[in-house]
Amino acid sequence: MQVVDLVIYARWIIPVVPQSVTHENHALVISKGRIIDLLPSIEADLKYQSSQIVKLDEHALIPGLINSHSHTGMSLLRGIADDLPLMDWLQNHIWPLEQKWVSESFVKDGADLAIAEMIRGGTTCFNDMYFFPDVVAERAIEHGIRASIGLILIEFASAWAENADDYLKKGLRLHQQLQGQALMTTPFAPHAPYTVSDDSLIKIKQLAEKHQLAIHMHLHETQHEVEEQQQKTQQSPLQRLHQLGLLSPSLMAVHMTQLTQQDIDLVAQTGTHIIHCPESNLKLVSGFCPVAQCLKSNINVALGTDGAASNNDLDMFGEMRTAALLAKGISSDASAVPASTALEMATINGAKALGIENETGSLSLGKAADIVAIDLSQLEMQPIYEPVSQIVYAANRQQVSDVWVAGKQLLKQRQLSTIDIADLKERVMLWQKRLKN
Amino acid sequence: MQVVDLVIYARWIIPVVPQSVTHENHALVISKGRIIDLLPSIEADLKYQSSQIVKLDEHALIPGLINSHSHTGMSLLRGIADDLPLMDWLQNHIWPLEQKWVSESFVKDGADLAIAEMIRGGTTCFNDMYFFPDVVAERAIEHGIRASIGLILIEFASAWAENADDYLKKGLRLHQQLQGQALMTTPFAPHAPYTVSDDSLIKIKQLAEKHQLAIHMHLHETQHEVEEQQQKTQQSPLQRLHQLGLLSPSLMAVHMTQLTQQDIDLVAQTGTHIIHCPESNLKLVSGFCPVAQCLKSNINVALGTDGAASNNDLDMFGEMRTAALLAKGISSDASAVPASTALEMATINGAKALGIENETGSLSLGKAADIVAIDLSQLEMQPIYEPVSQIVYAANRQQVSDVWVAGKQLLKQRQLSTIDIADLKERVMLWQKRLKN
Repeated sequence: MQVVDLVIYARWIIPVVPQSVTHENHALVISKGRIIDLLPSIEADLKYQSSQIVKLDEHALIPGLINSHSHTGMSLLRGIADDLPLMDWLQNHIWPLEQKWVSESFVKDGADLAIAEMIRGGTTCFNDMYFFPDVVAERAIEHGIRASIGLILIEFASAWAENADDYLKKGLRLHQQLQGQALMTTPFAPHAPYTVSDDSLIKIKQLAEKHQLAIHMHLHETQHEVEEQQQKTQQSPLQRLHQLGLLSPSLMAVHMTQLTQQDIDLVAQTGTHIIHCPESNLKLVSGFCPVAQCLKSNINVALGTDGAASNNDLDMFGEMRTAALLAKGISSDASAVPASTALEMATINGAKALGIENETGSLSLGKAADIVAIDLSQLEMQPIYEPVSQIVYAANRQQVSDVWVAGKQLLKQRQLSTIDIADLKERVMLWQKRLKN
Repeated sequence: MQVVDLVIYARWIIPVVPQSVTHENHALVISKGRIIDLLPSIEADLKYQSSQIVKLDEHALIPGLINSHSHTGMSLLRGIADDLPLMDWLQNHIWPLEQKWVSESFVKDGADLAIAEMIRGGTTCFNDMYFFPDVVAERAIEHGIRASIGLILIEFASAWAENADDYLKKGLRLHQQLQGQALMTTPFAPHAPYTVSDDSLIKIKQLAEKHQLAIHMHLHETQHEVEEQQQKTQQSPLQRLHQLGLLSPSLMAVHMTQLTQQDIDLVAQTGTHIIHCPESNLKLVSGFCPVAQCLKSNINVALGTDGAASNNDLDMFGEMRTAALLAKGISSDASAVPASTALEMATINGAKALGIENETGSLSLGKAADIVAIDLSQLEMQPIYEPVSQIVYAANRQQVSDVWVAGKQLLKQRQLSTIDIADLKERVMLWQKRLKN
C-alpha cells in the first residue's frame, strides 16, 4: 500500500478534462498538494493508505471554479445602487463612493468578504482587478485561495497611485514581491481602452513580454465605448489594441459584448481569450457577448462574475447557469453551451485564460488538488439522470460542502477553515453604517 | 392584550402592497389563518398575546411566492433531456416518455416532489397544468399548499382522458369535487392553440363563464406556433383566441414570446394576463417575452417556472433574478424590472392572474397568512443596503427558513412539516431507475 496525504471517495467525479466524462464511485488521491491518481473506489481501497480519508457518498467532485473577472474590493458596495443605467450607476454612484471610501482597509475588508463568499461557493481561483492589489494579494495568501492579482493601471489618480508611472512602478514592485508565491500570478491590468493611453499600453506590452506576464483588460464592454473610440480614431478599441500588438494568447479581454464577425475572426486568429460576465452584462445593459459564435470559432471563453456591485453576487454557479441559458436564447440554438461546456468555461477555460492550465482547471494527474465537492443529496436535485446537468441547471452554491486548494482544505462541511466569519461580518457591518450615511 | 394565534417578529417585512415599502423591526399578527395586523415590534409586544411567537431577527418576511405556471407531474423528468432544440426535445424525448410512463402514481410522486421543492423554496401557491389534475389536487390538499388546479384539455388521448369531451367531463367533475376547498381554484387548462380545436375552446369559454372559472393556456410560445397558425388560417393564435372571445381578465396566457406592438395593445385592452417563464423560454429557445413593454402597457405580468423538465428547477428566486436581468438586457434599459417589480411579478401579479388577489399575493390586513421568511444573515448577503435588492439579485432559495400557508406552518427552520422527505426520495429513486432504462 502506498502512503498518501488524502483520499477523497465520491459518488461522482467530473474531471472536466477529458470532456464530458463522469466517473461513478471513484476516488481522487492527493499527495503533496497534487492529484496523483483517479481510480475506482474499490481499487483505491487496496492501493492507497492515507491518514486523511473523506467519503462523499452523495457528492460530485469537480475542479475548483475559476472566477476569471472580479473586483473583490467592491464587495462592500453590493446592492448599494441597482437598476440604474451604466453611466448613471458609474458616474453618480460607484465612482463618487470609490473616490470617498477606497483605502487599504476598505480593500482589505472587501477582499476578505469576497474571498469568503467565493470559497463558500466553490471558487478556488480569482482573477482580480482593483486598487491596492498588494492588499488583495496579502488577503488571498492569508486565506489560501489561488489568485491572479491584476497590476492595475488607470490614467487618473487614486488612493493607490498618483499617475500611470506610479501605477506601473507599484505594479512591478508587487510582481517582484509575489515571485515566490506558488498560488499567485500577476498579470498587468490596464483598466479599459477609454481609461488607458497608447503610451501606457505600449509600456505594458513591453514589460509584459520582458517579465512574461499576461494582460487583463475590459474590452468592448458597451456600444458607447466602441462608438466613442471609432469617432475619435476611426478604429474600434479592438483594432487599436491589435495595432499596438496587444491581441495575443497573453490577453484576457473581458466582456466583449460588441463583436462583428470580423472582430471574432481577429480574436480567434490572435488567440486572445474572452472573459464572459453574463449577469453583469445583463444588469448594466452592456450588450450580449456572442458566446456560441466565439466557441464555434475556437476562441477560449472563460467566465467571471464581475464585481458584487453589478451582479450582485460572486456566484459561479449562477454565472454558469446564466451563461448556458443566455447563449441559447441569443444564438437561437438550444444546443449552444450545453451544461458540460458551461462547466468547462468555469474551470479549464479559466485556467487557460489565466495561463495556469498546467496547474489547475481540471482533475488531472499532476495538477494541483483544487477540488470542490457538491452535495447532490437534496430533494431538489432528484432524480439524477446526469450530474453535470443538475450542477449547472438546478444546483446552487450552498450545496458546496468542501473545498480544497492545492490540497489544503479551505471549506469543510460548509465551515471556512481560514476565515473568522463573525469577525468579518462585524467589519462589514461597520462599512455598511459608514457608507449608508 | 388581544389574544391571537401567531405573532411573527422580523427584522424586515416587505408587504409588496403598497409598492416599494420595507418595514424594519415590525411584526405580523395572525388570527384564524389571516393577517390581522402589521405594526412595529414594540407596539406588538404591548398589544398582542399569542401562544405562538416566532422571532426572526435577521430575516425578511415576504408574501408567499406564486408559481404561476407549472407542470408538477413532470418533476420526475428533471434533467432527463437537456440542451436540445424544442421539437427534438418534445417529440423524441418528453412525449415518448410521457406516453410510456404517465399514470396516477407517476403524477402522485412527481407532484409530491414538486410540492416539496416549492415549499422549501418559498412557493406557497402554484398554477398547474398536467394530466391527472385530481391527483395533483389531492397531493396539494394533503400537503397544505395553495393551488390552482388546471382542468386540462388536449385533443389527444392520454392515460387521464380519451377525448375532448372526456377531458371536459372529468375536469368539471373535479371542479365540483373541489368546491369546498378554501385553498383551491380550478381554471380550465386547454393546452395550446395548436393542440385544442375551436370547438373545444368555444365549449370551454361557455363553461368558464357559467362556472366563473379562469382559463390557463400556453400562447405564442414559439415563432413556429405563430407562423404555422398564420399559414393555416391567416390569423395569429392570439387573433384566433380574440375572435373566439377568449381574451379577457379571465385568461392567463403563458409564455407570449412572440408579440408585436399590436398584440401587446390587444392583450392590454382585453385585460389578459401574461405568465412569463424566462428560464424555460431561454432553455428551449422559445424567444423573448417583451416584459418591459408589456409592463409599460399596464399588462399584468406574473412569473412561472414551467415544468422541471425545461428549467430544471421550480425555483422562484432564480426566476425573479432571471426575469429582472433578462428584461434589462432585452429592452436595453437598466431600469426595466427593478428588484421590487420582480418581487411583485412573483407575488401580487400572480395572485391577480389567478384571480385570488383578495386572498393572497401581499402581506395585507385581511388576506390569508401566506408568508415566507428569508434568512439574510449569511455573509453572501452583506452588506444590506436594500433587502429587496439582496433577495432578488443575491439570495437563493436555500435561505428560505419558514413558510406559512393560510397561517399553517409548512416549513419550520428548513424542515417540512407535511412531507416525509426520506420516503419521497425513495419513491423518486425508483422512478429514476425505471426511466433510465
